[in-house]
Amino acid sequence: MEHKIAFVGFGGMAGWHNRQIKTIDNIEVAGIWDIKEERRKAAADQGLRVYGSMDELLADPSTDLVLIAAPNDVHKPAAIAAMEAGKNVISEKPVTLSSSDLQEMIDASARTGRFLTVHQNRRWDEDFLTIKNVLAEGHLGEVFRIESRVHGSRGIPGDWRQEKEHGGGMILDWGVHLLDQALLLFPGVPLKTVYASITNVTNQLVDDGFTAELLFGNGIRVLVEVGTSHFAPLPRWVVLGADGTAVIEDWKLNGRIVKAAGVNEKDVVPVITAAGLTKTMAPRRPENIATEKLPIAASDVRDFYRNVMAVLEGREERLIKLPEVMRVMKLMEAIMKSAETNTVVAFE
Amino acid sequence: MEHKIAFVGFGGMAGWHNRQIKTIDNIEVAGIWDIKEERRKAAADQGLRVYGSMDELLADPSTDLVLIAAPNDVHKPAAIAAMEAGKNVISEKPVTLSSSDLQEMIDASARTGRFLTVHQNRRWDEDFLTIKNVLAEGHLGEVFRIESRVHGSRGIPGDWRQEKEHGGGMILDWGVHLLDQALLLFPGVPLKTVYASITNVTNQLVDDGFTAELLFGNGIRVLVEVGTSHFAPLPRWVVLGADGTAVIEDWKLNGRIVKAAGVNEKDVVPVITAAGLTKTMAPRRPENIATEKLPIAASDVRDFYRNVMAVLEGREERLIKLPEVMRVMKLMEAIMKSAETNTVVAFE
Repeated sequence: MEHKIAFVGFGGMAGWHNRQIKTIDNIEVAGIWDIKEERRKAAADQGLRVYGSMDELLADPSTDLVLIAAPNDVHKPAAIAAMEAGKNVISEKPVTLSSSDLQEMIDASARTGRFLTVHQNRRWDEDFLTIKNVLAEGHLGEVFRIESRVHGSRGIPGDWRQEKEHGGGMILDWGVHLLDQALLLFPGVPLKTVYASITNVTNQLVDDGFTAELLFGNGIRVLVEVGTSHFAPLPRWVVLGADGTAVIEDWKLNGRIVKAAGVNEKDVVPVITAAGLTKTMAPRRPENIATEKLPIAASDVRDFYRNVMAVLEGREERLIKLPEVMRVMKLMEAIMKSAETNTVVAFE
Repeated sequence: MEHKIAFVGFGGMAGWHNRQIKTIDNIEVAGIWDIKEERRKAAADQGLRVYGSMDELLADPSTDLVLIAAPNDVHKPAAIAAMEAGKNVISEKPVTLSSSDLQEMIDASARTGRFLTVHQNRRWDEDFLTIKNVLAEGHLGEVFRIESRVHGSRGIPGDWRQEKEHGGGMILDWGVHLLDQALLLFPGVPLKTVYASITNVTNQLVDDGFTAELLFGNGIRVLVEVGTSHFAPLPRWVVLGADGTAVIEDWKLNGRIVKAAGVNEKDVVPVITAAGLTKTMAPRRPENIATEKLPIAASDVRDFYRNVMAVLEGREERLIKLPEVMRVMKLMEAIMKSAETNTVVAFE
């Protein structure tokens, strides 16, 4: 079965979608609409059809899918309008700005019988899938803490992403990915509490970073941090187990697993500093520690679109489930509430 | 003026004190007492006088100072007995197990007129003093977050340090240093709140590590973390400012300052991963970032003893003040309370 998709918005992410979809069978881009003249021209220059208006886009009988890749505050009205026009909808992330807005979108999906999903593309990021492998293999012993960080030094982007009314801020921008990943680490395990703080280093209107400490019902703590004023980034992932630590340093998946090996020797050579000595923090002898390669995962993010098509054809279950999307949205709200009140917020 | 000091306890730290004091003018070790035969023998083998009992040590009219370097639960009774015997007292850290115990010790000092201080030796650690230099120089722009971590992989030591009744646990062992340092970062600024969790990876009786997020009245957040099951340590210090980041990697003071330089360029080369692209987290171009050396500090930890002698001779003010020691003790109690209740604890 052939699918045709129209794009609402033609910024950076829509360009990325266009390049991906070109390489997939059974789906093609029908055309785009963008409120900005320059973006419509960019699309035309790439040989894409440009609709004369949003209404014209929605009225095109040849399309069964609409992708919404506009500023975050546009997702809800555009998605609801598209579903009411009989289209199935893929929304960019974050799906919208609040859980009540998301409920309106879910209600519209139920009312119209149209499919609604969210482009949670970073479920296919290989750093995340490698950490899932690490957990599945169980080589670290009992895991007690996981740290997931994304650190940049460019401040918050200078476009609508720094304006509150458009759904700006790093919680909604990068948080939505890292929190979605965090909630997928332990399927079926409730997230008990959240403690979070935000930063306002490069702007005051929205958060330009946040730190959230999550406590799950299995006792494992997960730190999620996004920073845009970090000139010396910490590792992308750290997984701490009783018997070893896994580290992914960067986007290129440099990293390693470091594990206890042999006995925990008694005759420690202390670390001596200007002010004292420590045996507790002395490094292990080389023969009592082992370094292993990470179980690197491979992925194909185009499986997102293939799954959307298979769902529409009744062949597969959806990969990105709306209750998962709602859970992430409520977690982002809990983080904002925790940061605003400086309290621990109960979650599930 | 000559000072003579007797040691109560002759474990690892007392050996360290002995080696330091040997190199200082105007003070000498008069002798030691330890409840363990093997440690008394070790002292005798080193040519030290071994008293026949604690009472004999306290009754020696030649000494004006007693150093207490025994398990943590011994500090209070030994310190009070020594002050009542007319001795001035240096206690190892943590000074005792609770703020009410410390108050008893402070009361004994007032009652007897004897001097009481605590060996907070890691105020002289060069990593800490280097961070103080970084803050004083102000080259990072407005600082918004500081992270202080000590990570080992040997678990909790197998001696009394894993027994609650002897004051075991990493909050009291290493926390007392890192928290003392943290409270000295911003003189006169109140610490508003604490959120903390503990780990029990290698034992269940006491904490074998903790993570504490401190919020100061100036809005700066300080993370203090001690871990004993971290096989791939994170940096010892990270200082985050609006214009740059300072990092001290390890005990050897490897590290650097990384700062913005030139313009924050617009034409970003995005980071492309398996699942998407990001401009926000793209690294800066080489010409827009600068790396500088840390302003490394030098210290002489023997200034601790020299200050004790100068205080006793009325020549100097004390460097380790009892209200500071009480503040750290109360902070350790707040951390234990926060971890136990999973709440944010108001502090000052």
